[in-house]
Amino acid sequence: MTDSLNKTEYTENVRFTLLSTDTATQARRGLITTPHGPVRTPCFMPVGTQGTVKSMVPERIRELGIDMILGNTYHLYLRPGHELIAKLGGLHRFMNWDKPILTDSGGFQIFSLGALRRITDDGVTFQSHIDGSRHMIRPEDTVRIQEALGSDIMMCLDECPPYTADTAYIEESLERTTRWAARCKAVKRRDEQALFGIVQGGFSPILRRRSLDEITALDFDGYALGGVSVGEPKERMREIVESTTPFFPANKPRYLMGVGTPEDIVESVAHGIDMFDCVMPTRNARNGMLFTNTGKVVIKNACYRDDESPIDDSCDCYTCRNYTRAYLRHLYIAREILAIILNTIHNVRFYARLMERIRTAIEKESYGEFRKRYLRNSSFNV
Amino acid sequence: MTDSLNKTEYTENVRFTLLSTDTATQARRGLITTPHGPVRTPCFMPVGTQGTVKSMVPERIRELGIDMILGNTYHLYLRPGHELIAKLGGLHRFMNWDKPILTDSGGFQIFSLGALRRITDDGVTFQSHIDGSRHMIRPEDTVRIQEALGSDIMMCLDECPPYTADTAYIEESLERTTRWAARCKAVKRRDEQALFGIVQGGFSPILRRRSLDEITALDFDGYALGGVSVGEPKERMREIVESTTPFFPANKPRYLMGVGTPEDIVESVAHGIDMFDCVMPTRNARNGMLFTNTGKVVIKNACYRDDESPIDDSCDCYTCRNYTRAYLRHLYIAREILAIILNTIHNVRFYARLMERIRTAIEKESYGEFRKRYLRNSSFNV
Repeated sequence: MTDSLNKTEYTENVRFTLLSTDTATQARRGLITTPHGPVRTPCFMPVGTQGTVKSMVPERIRELGIDMILGNTYHLYLRPGHELIAKLGGLHRFMNWDKPILTDSGGFQIFSLGALRRITDDGVTFQSHIDGSRHMIRPEDTVRIQEALGSDIMMCLDECPPYTADTAYIEESLERTTRWAARCKAVKRRDEQALFGIVQGGFSPILRRRSLDEITALDFDGYALGGVSVGEPKERMREIVESTTPFFPANKPRYLMGVGTPEDIVESVAHGIDMFDCVMPTRNARNGMLFTNTGKVVIKNACYRDDESPIDDSCDCYTCRNYTRAYLRHLYIAREILAIILNTIHNVRFYARLMERIRTAIEKESYGEFRKRYLRNSSFNV
Repeated sequence: MTDSLNKTEYTENVRFTLLSTDTATQARRGLITTPHGPVRTPCFMPVGTQGTVKSMVPERIRELGIDMILGNTYHLYLRPGHELIAKLGGLHRFMNWDKPILTDSGGFQIFSLGALRRITDDGVTFQSHIDGSRHMIRPEDTVRIQEALGSDIMMCLDECPPYTADTAYIEESLERTTRWAARCKAVKRRDEQALFGIVQGGFSPILRRRSLDEITALDFDGYALGGVSVGEPKERMREIVESTTPFFPANKPRYLMGVGTPEDIVESVAHGIDMFDCVMPTRNARNGMLFTNTGKVVIKNACYRDDESPIDDSCDCYTCRNYTRAYLRHLYIAREILAIILNTIHNVRFYARLMERIRTAIEKESYGEFRKRYLRNSSFNV
């Protein structure tokens, strides 16, 4: 790794330091310090939905070069419950991960429930996907739940309208998201947990700008672009990132929620995004789709039957140092758990290495070159 | 660990050294040296059916104190195929486990296929459980397949009659097993791989003794008791172990196939058994049944909901050092892969520690005391 961590970078509160900015692009190198240690930005957070990054022991996640993971408030609220986790010492201790955690507000998962949820100004009512039980979550509740979980960075409850929503609805929803953000901020109690605001506004740069002005006026510890990755064509997402990100305050971290492919990340960093999360590396690993610097490897394919090479010759991960494609194909076809474990290690390391290369390129003030070269050679618009 | 390995104990061929014998019982401390390193006996081998001990990276298996694992010839022959494994450098290299491996002959799995298989003197024909394809395996084939896999210890093809078989059939089957053993020995080519004979004879001490005489007359590198764990009452198995084991040659390792519970192991060691394998620790882990020194823990039970203690206070495994029962219960109920990983680590370590305690007790010539105490306190007749 080219950028090493200083183990003393633990702070009582969450703080962001902008270390350098690229010359030809808006890419930024930064450092978020937290009570659970530092996060080098731009960063990628693997998703730990139910209190575990699927198939990984925490020490392994750390070894791969990951500084922060994401926890899903919706899932943890339903099972095992935030009160139980608080009683057991908080999410870090519960899952044996003593490094930074960001929790979402649960909103995105609740809105994904479709017919099972209903939105009012007060909050959102929904039925559990596990047992059908009915729940009501207000903005105040999401902060209370995330405080119980004890994450380093909490997210405000926002409404995430579908790609097909009309302008009138997006405006109404945007205003509600602002009111909810103010309510979240008002009830936040714990100094050691940061709270980020989320900018909505659909795919209209004008509405996005309006949301951004309203949310930043509330003064949060960081800001996210939400409501992308909702089924829109890739270009629409990139337009919003390009047109909105420059107006975020420079001294706060910027988080593009739920994104994305390696190309999405490389492109978004060029516009000044600092933080990413996505299920892609872990979910694709479980489906046998592996990332390499020369393209996708679909490990079940017959061409790998007797292939003695590693997934990616240039990769330094445990899987690539020790296993052939032939063995990984066998494990996948035989539906062995070890297939998921080894594939996940590789894909998460692929993302971690991408972020390392991104950070190095920014430090060398050569991000423009890096981006051009990367997007020319890559093929992950999956 | 009380008995440490000398890293130089790699030999060109497989050799057994009897280190000591208990005074009050027939328990033996021994050492099997192999081209892939030493195995301290009495030993327990976790089962690696499809070229992986389910959910475990090989380094972890090693850390847990396991010297040798078992590979299933039937499964590897069907998928990915022994020829492919040979082409890729043998089973050790294929699965990244450079320590000793014992392979069974495939017979037990084939006989378990029931209606899908047919036995003749020539060998056994069967249909694959994967794709229904037809196969014929002769004794000579099992040796050829195991030579392609490159295991350290190979097993002869034997016939494993059901518990309900009548005496006439058991006699016929026993004679066939002897003829098959002679054919296996005749075609064995590689000095670096040991070949063990298997004693059959159902649950008649007389027929067992006859099989033992015939098999030992053929002079193998070690001997196994097969045909137990076929649904018989536990006492019947113990009778056979007790009445047969004393007549095995003292200078060769003795292997009780497919056994068993901690009590079975403790009891069988007292009669002079050196080697065990069983799916119990790994399979039970996947089903949420955990072994402790004070009894079983069924981790899904509601009583563990907020239990902050480890599975077993006295256990030194990674899982017990880092995770609460409450977390493990959550992972199990949420059907997370990490549940299987952490449970397997614990159960395999439980078995490895049991074997360490057994070896220490024999070294101290206090195995009789150990056995009495263990069987009084334990409750794993599962």
